[in-house]
Amino acid sequence: MVHQGIVQPLLTDLYQITMAYAYWKFNKQSQAAVFELFFRNNPFKGGYTIFAGLSDCIEFVSNFAYSKSDIDYVKSILPSSVEEEFFHFLSGIHGDQVTIAAVPEGSVVFPRVPLLRVEGPLATVLLMETTLLTLVNYASLVTTNATRFRLTAGNDKPLFEFGLRRAQGPNGGLSASRYCYIGGFNGTSNVLAGKLFSIPVVGTHSHAFVMSFSGLTDLCKTHVQYATGSDSKLFDLKCGTQKWLTQISPMLDVAEDEIIEGELAAFISIAIAFPTNFLALVDTYDVIRSGIPCFCAVTLALDEAGYRAKGIRLDSGDLAYLSRQSRCQFQLLAERLNKPWLSLLTIVASNDINVRTMNSLNQQGHQINAYGIGTHLVTCQEQPALGCVYKLVELDGVAKMKLTQERSKLSLPAKKKVYRLFGENGSPLADLLQKYDESPPLVDQQVLCCHPFQESERKYIVPSRVEEMNCNYWIKGKSCKEIPKLVDIRNYCQNQVNSLRRDHQLLSNLNTYKVFVSDALYQTMHKLWVGDTTMREPGSYHE
Amino acid sequence: MVHQGIVQPLLTDLYQITMAYAYWKFNKQSQAAVFELFFRNNPFKGGYTIFAGLSDCIEFVSNFAYSKSDIDYVKSILPSSVEEEFFHFLSGIHGDQVTIAAVPEGSVVFPRVPLLRVEGPLATVLLMETTLLTLVNYASLVTTNATRFRLTAGNDKPLFEFGLRRAQGPNGGLSASRYCYIGGFNGTSNVLAGKLFSIPVVGTHSHAFVMSFSGLTDLCKTHVQYATGSDSKLFDLKCGTQKWLTQISPMLDVAEDEIIEGELAAFISIAIAFPTNFLALVDTYDVIRSGIPCFCAVTLALDEAGYRAKGIRLDSGDLAYLSRQSRCQFQLLAERLNKPWLSLLTIVASNDINVRTMNSLNQQGHQINAYGIGTHLVTCQEQPALGCVYKLVELDGVAKMKLTQERSKLSLPAKKKVYRLFGENGSPLADLLQKYDESPPLVDQQVLCCHPFQESERKYIVPSRVEEMNCNYWIKGKSCKEIPKLVDIRNYCQNQVNSLRRDHQLLSNLNTYKVFVSDALYQTMHKLWVGDTTMREPGSYHE
Repeated sequence: MVHQGIVQPLLTDLYQITMAYAYWKFNKQSQAAVFELFFRNNPFKGGYTIFAGLSDCIEFVSNFAYSKSDIDYVKSILPSSVEEEFFHFLSGIHGDQVTIAAVPEGSVVFPRVPLLRVEGPLATVLLMETTLLTLVNYASLVTTNATRFRLTAGNDKPLFEFGLRRAQGPNGGLSASRYCYIGGFNGTSNVLAGKLFSIPVVGTHSHAFVMSFSGLTDLCKTHVQYATGSDSKLFDLKCGTQKWLTQISPMLDVAEDEIIEGELAAFISIAIAFPTNFLALVDTYDVIRSGIPCFCAVTLALDEAGYRAKGIRLDSGDLAYLSRQSRCQFQLLAERLNKPWLSLLTIVASNDINVRTMNSLNQQGHQINAYGIGTHLVTCQEQPALGCVYKLVELDGVAKMKLTQERSKLSLPAKKKVYRLFGENGSPLADLLQKYDESPPLVDQQVLCCHPFQESERKYIVPSRVEEMNCNYWIKGKSCKEIPKLVDIRNYCQNQVNSLRRDHQLLSNLNTYKVFVSDALYQTMHKLWVGDTTMREPGSYHE
Repeated sequence: MVHQGIVQPLLTDLYQITMAYAYWKFNKQSQAAVFELFFRNNPFKGGYTIFAGLSDCIEFVSNFAYSKSDIDYVKSILPSSVEEEFFHFLSGIHGDQVTIAAVPEGSVVFPRVPLLRVEGPLATVLLMETTLLTLVNYASLVTTNATRFRLTAGNDKPLFEFGLRRAQGPNGGLSASRYCYIGGFNGTSNVLAGKLFSIPVVGTHSHAFVMSFSGLTDLCKTHVQYATGSDSKLFDLKCGTQKWLTQISPMLDVAEDEIIEGELAAFISIAIAFPTNFLALVDTYDVIRSGIPCFCAVTLALDEAGYRAKGIRLDSGDLAYLSRQSRCQFQLLAERLNKPWLSLLTIVASNDINVRTMNSLNQQGHQINAYGIGTHLVTCQEQPALGCVYKLVELDGVAKMKLTQERSKLSLPAKKKVYRLFGENGSPLADLLQKYDESPPLVDQQVLCCHPFQESERKYIVPSRVEEMNCNYWIKGKSCKEIPKLVDIRNYCQNQVNSLRRDHQLLSNLNTYKVFVSDALYQTMHKLWVGDTTMREPGSYHE
């Protein structure tokens, strides 16, 4: 549903298919393979990552099958020496050959923890690699990014995703809307996302809208119904606005001829079209000299008709300063007119906001109530890709690991279980990876936790609670765990982030959350590692 | 076709629909509007941008219509006060109400030049804004990025896009494959992109493939047909490889027990599966001690069977050093064995390459023949969004411009024509924007070119050639210019980039290509600008 037919078996790298052929030719296609999907570094130099994309993965696997036209195309691009029988084999591949375990969507996760484990015949599992990575990488990245905005803004500020026009492709935009919602945003401007995912959709008007009005003569309608009145009784919003403008201009220290009449007309038209939702973009010309006075006059007139305006949006300039100035004007009128609600009007800020500028706004002091965030959120400007990888960890029951000259690229061998160990205060202390058949760590018992690469770094943890993080979602064609509704994934994600210790939570990686391995897993790994005579320290082959 | 049903009228920001309602309510929906789409800064701090996405835009507009379910959804999210009649209006909106002019897809373009001009009824033109921006922004960004890799690599090095797994959503991946091809890449690893767009698809094998072989006993097949022989005669590639390995190991100064037997088996299996396309990933264990000797042994055995191997891929480590070392080994064997072709084998490099690392490889000296490029290419890591905007420039025949306190956000008013002025050597000198009804600049005549904002900066240019850059593609429902085939857009784009002067072309913006306006356009703009009494210098309202 999310990806409307693009997510299909051919959305893959060609080498998956050429390798599948080689496996098939050497009768290895059915070897029992276990692959794990994980990443090596938290994005954005942050302390954690959110796992997302699982629902899409399960949907992809459950529909996995090559169509006749897929097979014909693949045949056309492979060498003619490829045996015909291989294409019969390909067309017999289905998602019911694999088993998928995963951590729940929306979980806080950490480097080297297997997010997804895919088990099944070697060729089949491999043929799913690229698509699964595509589905998890961006989803997790943008969800993580959204949670960072949420943490920075605080839990009480509505956040809206406005990124569609700057997203990487139409589907990048759709995915962003969905996953930013999971990450704690309150809504999106993207109508199709609203329709497909039942996410709240918001929007007001643009600068171009304001510019399209020259003056009050543009208004062929001037009246609104009273909010509570009968159908027949109408209020003249244009006259009411003009009257209020004359009254408040001196209070706001603005000369009436400073007002841009086109802006005033635009605001009146918006208020007449949406009397219950009046929110005006006030920075097309001059926020303080025209935008705010026009907005306040319309707002006061609407009030006479029984409607409460929502507020303003600022989309340029010094947002901290302009929001404070706007709030001052609201407060000033609230006092002078004895209408306290005026001081509480919403101020929405947009214009290229990222986590850093939001932090800086917080430091400067601002009066912003809600944010609209676009480019930096959806493109993840600070780091536009998450580096999830998909590695073979077991083949026909034998543990495997990638041995390489770059230690950072070593993978942890063997099919694993993931446990999260919690402290007394309910926050997670560390994750522990064990071999699949080890007995689980026990509450209130010492658990030996080993650094995966440094033998000296091991310690005992006594967890107050233990949670097994990965469980089966799909066993050979059978869905065995329901995918929660979007809003439930969103709530789970928010709880996950909020339960993190502050020093693990936020936006630097000074105090890294630890992912340990059990001693048994450590031994398995080091047997493979040390046993490999070609291993050298990184760079040693330069000498 | 590219976006498989995602690109539809609801792929927009809600405010476009709320504004359309306000326009409709005030009877402004049919005002004759002209919007122009442009950007303000070249991406990547570069000297130019490539315009792309036009075919998608025309396809979108030609199919523009709200379905019943779209209308029902919109109704469900707007306030109940919205008049029913508006939804009838919406359902009557079609792409045949607008006219679209554009510069050709694949053109080199510059800041403030209108890339797309959309004319039609105000509400209709507005309802297309977000989708058009989405279609142009990422397409142009990633095409531009691809051309920068092409310029850095030089015209003779094949470049392959390997970015699917790191792309921003599945459709981000598909778009990237398509537009990187336009930008000068030779192919992609993305099979679906190959199928949909007829782009060459490439791929070999992964580290996991190598790791899945433990030794030569894994090989249940050992023979290949001779390249030129009859069906019955087979060559024992396993034995041949072993024989060659024994012979070349001392030449390469490698002890035979340094060879990883699983790697050798993997390479033999790849060669048996694809004898005509043998290209091996040689860095799973140790490039020089195992990868290269294994590859060379298989290559020499294949040669006996009449096949010419392609080469190797390096995916980690110091690519400059490893490529030089690999080339040395090839050359050494070429001399010792008197097989000169060995020294010419292809070396493909991948592993997180960006323009900077490619430049650095060029400086260090390398022996790389081709590149596979992923993350940095498709996500445009250096700058992941292009800031195209869509601005009202004329309404009912009256020029409009956005007046704002931020001078950088000023837009150029009026419906325009775009001319490119060329010098004697065939390179473009500058672009000139004129009002639509001005007579065009003439060859070999002085043309007055004005800086849009600085009155003192104007000069005469005598062009040797003048090209009108924008022309109509779609006039009220009729396609009036054929969209070229992908490969023709690609060729046009390459010519565009290559015709640029070197100082305008490459990767810094020290010597900026100039975009001028005619005096008439300058006057129109400054009448609007100066006439606006609220204009102040940026920041002046802080005092």
